[in-house]
Amino acid sequence: MMLDETHDPALESWVELAQAPDCEFPIQNLPLGIFKRRGHKEPARGGVAIGDQILDLVALDIRTGPTLNGLAAMGRSAARKMRRELSRALSVKSKQKKRLQKHLVPMKQGELFLPVAIGDYSDFFTGIHHATNMGRLFRPDNPLLPNYKWVPIGYHGRGSSIVVSGTAVRRPKGQLKAPDAAAPSFAASRRLDYEVELGFIAGAGNRLGQPIALRDALDHVFGVVLLNDWSARDIQAWEYQPLGPFLGKSFATTISPWVVTMDALEPYRCPAFARSSEDPQPLPYLLDEADQRDGGLAIEMEMHLRTPKMKTPQRLSRGNFRDSYWTVAQMVAHQTSNGCNLQPGDLLGSGTISGPAPDSFGSMMELTLAGKNPLQLASGETRSFLEDGDEVIQRGRCAREGYATIGFGEASGRIMPAASK
Amino acid sequence: MMLDETHDPALESWVELAQAPDCEFPIQNLPLGIFKRRGHKEPARGGVAIGDQILDLVALDIRTGPTLNGLAAMGRSAARKMRRELSRALSVKSKQKKRLQKHLVPMKQGELFLPVAIGDYSDFFTGIHHATNMGRLFRPDNPLLPNYKWVPIGYHGRGSSIVVSGTAVRRPKGQLKAPDAAAPSFAASRRLDYEVELGFIAGAGNRLGQPIALRDALDHVFGVVLLNDWSARDIQAWEYQPLGPFLGKSFATTISPWVVTMDALEPYRCPAFARSSEDPQPLPYLLDEADQRDGGLAIEMEMHLRTPKMKTPQRLSRGNFRDSYWTVAQMVAHQTSNGCNLQPGDLLGSGTISGPAPDSFGSMMELTLAGKNPLQLASGETRSFLEDGDEVIQRGRCAREGYATIGFGEASGRIMPAASK
Repeated sequence: MMLDETHDPALESWVELAQAPDCEFPIQNLPLGIFKRRGHKEPARGGVAIGDQILDLVALDIRTGPTLNGLAAMGRSAARKMRRELSRALSVKSKQKKRLQKHLVPMKQGELFLPVAIGDYSDFFTGIHHATNMGRLFRPDNPLLPNYKWVPIGYHGRGSSIVVSGTAVRRPKGQLKAPDAAAPSFAASRRLDYEVELGFIAGAGNRLGQPIALRDALDHVFGVVLLNDWSARDIQAWEYQPLGPFLGKSFATTISPWVVTMDALEPYRCPAFARSSEDPQPLPYLLDEADQRDGGLAIEMEMHLRTPKMKTPQRLSRGNFRDSYWTVAQMVAHQTSNGCNLQPGDLLGSGTISGPAPDSFGSMMELTLAGKNPLQLASGETRSFLEDGDEVIQRGRCAREGYATIGFGEASGRIMPAASK
Repeated sequence: MMLDETHDPALESWVELAQAPDCEFPIQNLPLGIFKRRGHKEPARGGVAIGDQILDLVALDIRTGPTLNGLAAMGRSAARKMRRELSRALSVKSKQKKRLQKHLVPMKQGELFLPVAIGDYSDFFTGIHHATNMGRLFRPDNPLLPNYKWVPIGYHGRGSSIVVSGTAVRRPKGQLKAPDAAAPSFAASRRLDYEVELGFIAGAGNRLGQPIALRDALDHVFGVVLLNDWSARDIQAWEYQPLGPFLGKSFATTISPWVVTMDALEPYRCPAFARSSEDPQPLPYLLDEADQRDGGLAIEMEMHLRTPKMKTPQRLSRGNFRDSYWTVAQMVAHQTSNGCNLQPGDLLGSGTISGPAPDSFGSMMELTLAGKNPLQLASGETRSFLEDGDEVIQRGRCAREGYATIGFGEASGRIMPAASK
């Protein structure tokens, strides 16, 4: 862990609501995003969330333009320096309060955008409980494939359809084929699901042909967002052999607007996944003592559902990224081990994170056993998969004794009916 | 077919070598690219290949900047108009010769770049002979999976590692596991292969949630390049279940620098793949009479190999895109059928195109039966897969009785040894 004065839990901000007990954005967090004032004709630009406000980064003479890619590209030491600067400027001891106040925009008046222009999006499969649950549906006796504990399995995802929280998601159409049907048909998906993931945003890139070593990997990560990898299970089931998921997932992926930086997450680092004595040791390029000791991240993730009949959302699951079989550093080292280049703003999804217990399962596929055991909701309704009008809301937070609790905001989306033609 | 005066085979250019019998870039071609003069400090910008020259598009007051994405975004009718303008300006009848001559750069002095900034790269699997050959290696009795003749199978590829012809390719390292080995090891790939493909560059995009109908699909394609989807077969074999190819292909993909526009290809349109009476009809969203009649493209593709011991390259295969099971329009309609958005500059690979005969197989995996029958080269050498120092050179051309013959230039790359650490 690399802690400094910015992580001091006693630190307070002159933005009063930053101290509210349930505030996701205390001065220890300082997540970055792209915003403008709703309804104003003005360019989108970088801001930092503090309490119930957004501080325009131009107040500190930081001109990001419409994405944070430039900040991401600067690398970890520049990010750390900027964090200290932001922390000092926003602390109760700051002498800049009067000047900076003019650059505050109430979060309620802010319109938030994708924080980065995403070049490539990879999605991993690091949730071993999820991989086991999904495998069990197809291969009850042998749920995990032989490569799972050796290879941080991943695939390339679709970048163009990544949207920011709040964007409505249209139910996709596609080829569907019931196992006993003679032929597929083209129709709206009937098995629309979400997946609870984290997204890691690449910072400084590497040159093509020059892998990033495991011990350097975290220097190439800018920060973390919540990620919902919407999935049409019926489209996916029929299309995915032999090349993997394609249209079953490429219709939309939702991320949260605030990038919680890797430095903000330092206090919540934890040991890597505890392998059993029967599990193989990672190969040397994926093994590093420091990474095993505290390369994990204890980030809690919740998924909530609000059907059109509900006044308040109902929580469906709560999981934790500490259940990931691979660390962020292992994902980065693996992704680049063949020389593949990361570019600032690239997105690396964790894959669905489920815990061992059913109330931590990160998809409806797992919660309902592929639709066989529908969820009984408090509203009296049932759900096997998502229905039109349903809104799902993903939240995240880090809490640790002796440190501030920080939040991730939310990644939400409501299902619109499929296109009529 | 939409033919106009630009396709007239009798048309000649005032650039003399454009009429040479083996010239790939006669006035009927007019492919677009991004270039600068080698060794000069000047910005890269758009040009058109004509004979042995590049005409700087600034001569016609077309300022592309460092990519052709802006031109691609304008759509097919603007592209058609520009083609006519270029054709007139370069024809022997042009009165602009004197003025334009100042904007010619000999191709030998030109440095060529990626023609577009590629957002998303999808790679299809439309070569039915390739799919059958590959499937037979794993499932001799049942080589094609049940979805193949219904779904234009594809997967998302890696965009960041797409390089332009001439870029050296470093042999990747990765996890390798022989079927009888107890555990994988991390080492340089021993089964490095190429794949002969075409790449279709998206023109005008579509909005997320709004599919492109089959009959409109070609309005969203800017042009075609050669594409070599380098593949490390041993990395791929161990990693690809259940999510598809990842590091086995993400280390490099080579494309040719000249975009042959869809309008240049009009004379070489041909019927879609002739399905047998036992093959299913495409589902309605993939079926259109006009597309069946002339949605195919007769583009010949060759792969050549030059080992360090050879003076001149040896041809390994010659195939034709008319053997693709799916048309370009079907690829575009399928890719967007779930609402996924295409953006100008996106790349859609065809997948490896092999014909029915062995001399048309588009990968070494097929030519050598997975390495079991090494190629006997004219130099006396043998090859199961590519060795360090080998250069592979992909070429393409369209020839049709009564029309000019046009070429694609080349997509070449030489293998560098794996990184030492």
